[in-house]
Amino acid sequence: MTADNYIVQEMPIVGLILQSLCTIPTEGGPVLRMLRPDTPLLPDFSQGFGELYFSEVLPGKVKAWKRHRRQTQLFAVPCGLLELVFFDNRPGSATDQVLFHTLLGRPEHYALLRIPPMVWYGFRARGDQPALICNFADMPHDPAECERLPADSPAIPWLWKEQR
Amino acid sequence: MTADNYIVQEMPIVGLILQSLCTIPTEGGPVLRMLRPDTPLLPDFSQGFGELYFSEVLPGKVKAWKRHRRQTQLFAVPCGLLELVFFDNRPGSATDQVLFHTLLGRPEHYALLRIPPMVWYGFRARGDQPALICNFADMPHDPAECERLPADSPAIPWLWKEQR
Repeated sequence: MTADNYIVQEMPIVGLILQSLCTIPTEGGPVLRMLRPDTPLLPDFSQGFGELYFSEVLPGKVKAWKRHRRQTQLFAVPCGLLELVFFDNRPGSATDQVLFHTLLGRPEHYALLRIPPMVWYGFRARGDQPALICNFADMPHDPAECERLPADSPAIPWLWKEQR
Repeated sequence: MTADNYIVQEMPIVGLILQSLCTIPTEGGPVLRMLRPDTPLLPDFSQGFGELYFSEVLPGKVKAWKRHRRQTQLFAVPCGLLELVFFDNRPGSATDQVLFHTLLGRPEHYALLRIPPMVWYGFRARGDQPALICNFADMPHDPAECERLPADSPAIPWLWKEQR
């Protein structure tokens, strides 16, 4: 086993962290790394993990807005292209009121994104393929710790456009 | 959090076990469960996990044959349709010389498959879409514990056909 040289980048919202991921070409199709226990993103997962699941986003569709009170999530997008928007309104956060827009997907945006609790997020599939999110979370899904706002909520300064 | 009622099925090779997985329809695209720590397949993962990665198989392409000396793998296929073949030649195994063929993919074959060490396996993407395997393994990838045979090896009584 060779150690990875992880490249970790702080995003413009405190606690939102991006880690590089390798894609390894092989005969028949590539291997895409997602997670090893030595990732620098892992402090939240030191006691084990909560749940691993996928969320598929159909072309042009929006899933927004949502935040978790306690759950930390690690997202990778192995299929399709996903547009993500984050909004921080955590009282006392150094990045309170910051809105951040990014992409996840192959080839140029294949990476692992850590989403901290209490940050609002939403996403939309770009292009004509569904986008597949693989989510590795530190707690099992629990609707009781999940908050939602409608995609067109005036509380978040972003206008989603559904497209087909 | 509600407990799942897992349906677990022993496959015709000892140690090869299939667990049902839920697909939850939601606005914008489905949520696909893969793994929670309470899965009955998890004894190998009680000390943590080794690595989470994807293997994409291009349409018609074959990846075969491979076995791991020590690694146990959990496979789910959230995209595309995958044809898998397993061959047991473990000395003393109750299913020595058994060959088993199955499918993984949505909608009707969306499930979690546990592949034990020392069982040969190979796979091929069916249809015109790439198949994506998500592999949750109990050890990080280590080429030193991995054995390979060519896809046309006479040691395994299966004829792979590459197609496009």
